[in-house]
Amino acid sequence: MNGSRLHHLLSITDLDRTQAEQILETARAFLAVTRRPVRKVPTLRGKTIVNLFYEASTRTRTSFELAGKRLSADVINVSTQASSTKKGETLRDTVATLDAMHADVIVVRHAASGAPHFVARHARGAVVNAGDGMHEHPTQALLDAFTIQQHKGTDLSRLRIAICGDILHSRVARSNALLLRMLGAEVCFAGPRTMLPLDEAALGGTCYDRIETAIEGCDVVMMLRIQRERLGTALFPTTREYAREFGLNAARLAKAKPDAIVMHPGPMNRGVEISEEVADGAHSVVLNQVESGVAIRMAVLYMCASEPGTPLAS
Amino acid sequence: MNGSRLHHLLSITDLDRTQAEQILETARAFLAVTRRPVRKVPTLRGKTIVNLFYEASTRTRTSFELAGKRLSADVINVSTQASSTKKGETLRDTVATLDAMHADVIVVRHAASGAPHFVARHARGAVVNAGDGMHEHPTQALLDAFTIQQHKGTDLSRLRIAICGDILHSRVARSNALLLRMLGAEVCFAGPRTMLPLDEAALGGTCYDRIETAIEGCDVVMMLRIQRERLGTALFPTTREYAREFGLNAARLAKAKPDAIVMHPGPMNRGVEISEEVADGAHSVVLNQVESGVAIRMAVLYMCASEPGTPLAS
Amino acid sequence: MNGSRLHHLLSITDLDRTQAEQILETARAFLAVTRRPVRKVPTLRGKTIVNLFYEASTRTRTSFELAGKRLSADVINVSTQASSTKKGETLRDTVATLDAMHADVIVVRHAASGAPHFVARHARGAVVNAGDGMHEHPTQALLDAFTIQQHKGTDLSRLRIAICGDILHSRVARSNALLLRMLGAEVCFAGPRTMLPLDEAALGGTCYDRIETAIEGCDVVMMLRIQRERLGTALFPTTREYAREFGLNAARLAKAKPDAIVMHPGPMNRGVEISEEVADGAHSVVLNQVESGVAIRMAVLYMCASEPGTPLAS
Repeated sequence: MNGSRLHHLLSITDLDRTQAEQILETARAFLAVTRRPVRKVPTLRGKTIVNLFYEASTRTRTSFELAGKRLSADVINVSTQASSTKKGETLRDTVATLDAMHADVIVVRHAASGAPHFVARHARGAVVNAGDGMHEHPTQALLDAFTIQQHKGTDLSRLRIAICGDILHSRVARSNALLLRMLGAEVCFAGPRTMLPLDEAALGGTCYDRIETAIEGCDVVMMLRIQRERLGTALFPTTREYAREFGLNAARLAKAKPDAIVMHPGPMNRGVEISEEVADGAHSVVLNQVESGVAIRMAVLYMCASEPGTPLAS
Repeated sequence: MNGSRLHHLLSITDLDRTQAEQILETARAFLAVTRRPVRKVPTLRGKTIVNLFYEASTRTRTSFELAGKRLSADVINVSTQASSTKKGETLRDTVATLDAMHADVIVVRHAASGAPHFVARHARGAVVNAGDGMHEHPTQALLDAFTIQQHKGTDLSRLRIAICGDILHSRVARSNALLLRMLGAEVCFAGPRTMLPLDEAALGGTCYDRIETAIEGCDVVMMLRIQRERLGTALFPTTREYAREFGLNAARLAKAKPDAIVMHPGPMNRGVEISEEVADGAHSVVLNQVESGVAIRMAVLYMCASEPGTPLAS
Repeated sequence: MNGSRLHHLLSITDLDRTQAEQILETARAFLAVTRRPVRKVPTLRGKTIVNLFYEASTRTRTSFELAGKRLSADVINVSTQASSTKKGETLRDTVATLDAMHADVIVVRHAASGAPHFVARHARGAVVNAGDGMHEHPTQALLDAFTIQQHKGTDLSRLRIAICGDILHSRVARSNALLLRMLGAEVCFAGPRTMLPLDEAALGGTCYDRIETAIEGCDVVMMLRIQRERLGTALFPTTREYAREFGLNAARLAKAKPDAIVMHPGPMNRGVEISEEVADGAHSVVLNQVESGVAIRMAVLYMCASEPGTPLAS
């Protein structure tokens, strides 16, 4: 395939179904590249990718860095610690600076919802959202859909998917809800009432305050990472109680279909939202998600930054 | 052009006019490279460049890192946080270590004036000063001269340039004063009396304690970044008063020539030494300076590290 | 030579003599590469090397990073500061994640003895120990043996080598003792009684509590870095007393053979375990050790990660 192009990837709502499917299809080819002995193609040689991370994240930064390097791009890491923000530079001036250096793609993670949209307004190059506040994390949703396809086939329309945890504050839940419904799946949600949205319609799926109800008969159980700093507050009393009420263990998983898969965006709080047994069990596809992540990010970077007509791999 | 060679770049005073003009000419070729779809040449393949930064600086480190990578060199970042200095290693042993690893170029930023000269005495490879204390920042001066040339033509001899701010403590002011006068420009200075040198002759240009007088009729207004930690001390009372007395705003800029350009090394303190309106206005060439920076650093690295006879780009 | 393969390098005890000699022989070829104008070979193109450092170390991290890049591998740095361990992720999950991203080699430094063995149990790729607690630092021992060979010839069987300092807590001492004896050298040790092992047999060489006795007539004096935090405790009274009793100075060095060489793994505490005069003197091969380090790490990475039959350099 000679890629269709993507200007930015800021939000799942920017994509139509054809584009989403094209990213997933492109990722299939790149997954094969990452599994070869020589995990590298010259596709983005001479392109510049900047990882602009205002929140620490080994796994997402590493995944994007590897994706860029395996496409032969030059990758530059800029993290808050070392950055000019210490000197009080605004996000806008930082972006304008990177843009003036001819960054072809700026991959941005930021605690403020909407920051990547702001970045996109001030950059000529492409912008990829690597997680913004409680808003979206579109490459996570894409890699999750890709992982589901690997296990359940490309047609998601007959699948029932339960997303469980702190739905209200999770950018992963939001991006997944949008994408999985676009691809035809039925999505439902479970979490403590204080962590569910007031307006169920916004998510496009039923919300349950008991995890067992959501899991019942489903094909995919997607557990969310609980922010430990939210526990012991008005939102939820204690870690132990969270594990007891909303943690995924073998007994609860037994309510799902026998061939259900278990997902988690990582890093996992073992013993809190997911038991050791389930995390490492036969249903877990957590490490497939990690592998898929590099392939999806290669696909997104390729579609954002390659010259028209560049073959995907050679 | 097959480059003439540069042993080190420690100070503008190391350069004669021919060498300075050669760097500027070489940078023109590399500027074209950075604007191509494939922003990369194999010129320094197999060479090792170490960015040794004892002061944090996103923009300068990123600019050198990109310059090295676009020349196909291997670039290693060593910053104070992660460095052996925590274990009490001396600068001399750190340099000897990098040298023993066959670093072809060490790019050094350090809070102590003269540190790069010290480094050069203990390294076989080339050393480039990326800013040392209150002494010099030669690649900044070169990129500034390069930017002026882009807007005013290569002959700077009829230009009047005003450098404004904390002249006394600024390595940017010092390097620019030396280089711009060498290239034939008339340079003058403005700043609070506490931030002007006692000996005007040292800078080779008139010093004014009113910014309006310096700007009057000039072709280039170069604003310096004010170190906020210097405000509220004996040097200057408050940020607000600094902005009122020495900040560049539209009214003051109107005293310059109608086609004057406004420069700033960044990061800008918007609303302090430069108003929002001027920073983003039609006269501002701040982002051209950033773009020029990568090209100048490519030129300097090329002239320091390429094998004799290596073509500049291919 | 087409390399024999190495699965992991966790400990010197994993190697037999043939393998150790093969690493040393391979390093000779790579030493030549690092001294060429073009210090790079395509040997590991498309391979991924992750430097996973839980302890800061400029010199070791830089040495591995350069070794990887000069073999044309993609190198990713993951350090504790930026890592998911802040979010409470276990070492096991971090390793599983890097493994799922198809890291071909994980180079790990960790404060816990045995951490690299743990990593190796959870990774499909190769694992290289870059220093684990008080246990081992095998590439340091290999580069030390390689440096000795450069000065004394490849046959170490007639050499007497004194290792001096905090023997008990030093991973460098342990790895060197194991390797140098395997290669046929006679090794002895000297240090304060509180810093010597109770069981001399474990090290395979005589322990002395006076440095002069150990040095007498030896071919190689290897000084260890003293951890300053250990001084002023029950282990040893003061820095000054340590220098007086156990520091290597010219007078003590005179007891060794006239052509003896002096080694130190760096960074040196000048004036503590080694005098300025000796550190920079004609007998010192400290910088040769640094140069050897890159060559040894290239050899180890090559033997761990290259496809069978890949020529060493081209």
